[in-house]
Amino acid sequence: MKILGNADRGCRRGPAEWFTGEVWIDTVLDTAWLGGGARVQAAQVTFTPGARTHWHTHPLGQTLYVLSGLGWVQLEGEAKRAIRPGDVVALAPGENHWHGAEAGHMMCHLAMQEADATGSPVTWGAAVTDEEYGG
Amino acid sequence: MKILGNADRGCRRGPAEWFTGEVWIDTVLDTAWLGGGARVQAAQVTFTPGARTHWHTHPLGQTLYVLSGLGWVQLEGEAKRAIRPGDVVALAPGENHWHGAEAGHMMCHLAMQEADATGSPVTWGAAVTDEEYGG
Repeated sequence: MKILGNADRGCRRGPAEWFTGEVWIDTVLDTAWLGGGARVQAAQVTFTPGARTHWHTHPLGQTLYVLSGLGWVQLEGEAKRAIRPGDVVALAPGENHWHGAEAGHMMCHLAMQEADATGSPVTWGAAVTDEEYGG
Repeated sequence: MKILGNADRGCRRGPAEWFTGEVWIDTVLDTAWLGGGARVQAAQVTFTPGARTHWHTHPLGQTLYVLSGLGWVQLEGEAKRAIRPGDVVALAPGENHWHGAEAGHMMCHLAMQEADATGSPVTWGAAVTDEEYGG
């Protein structure tokens, strides 16, 4: 058993290859902390106003749990939808989507996803354009 | 993609077979919401003062993320340890433990665990006695 405070865990800037705008990622669940067999990972992700992920998919799906602020999520081919504190977004394997903060508000969510046999929990695509974000 | 607010998700009393005292369980991640292949589940668990789990183990480990309050966690054979908001507790597969609220405070945490091939994420044991809780 390990007890890890914030000072014991990583907090890093979300890289430009995966995000548009300023995003911060706090590790909550590193699979390696659990010992053998587990494949889930989790992070608390904080988006500044207007910041968002690139389009992406997850091989075993993803769950977002909104902790604070106001944000958007969009599934490819559908209109974007607002997400608020207390909301859970459940994404099935392979669903192409993005999520991020509303233009005038922060948004913080916990993100949980499992890695597949290749060890990867995500496949990244193109950046969300300003036209897509504003659509 | 599903967006589920609190009104769309379950909130139930923690059963006496698993908990001592008054505990409430809000479902955050039901594996069935993700479609095929996933095996993680997550719940936000709120313990009233003095309430705690029974002794238990997880076949693929467990991660607790403390959201509010003040609590205790104990690994069998070790002294109990305090947990506070922002703390992460990482439990390896098979580690026998309990967790709950401090006697004078609420404690709320997110709990994440994966089910093994039998479909179960947990094996429950005996209740934590008042002597163990106070020890």
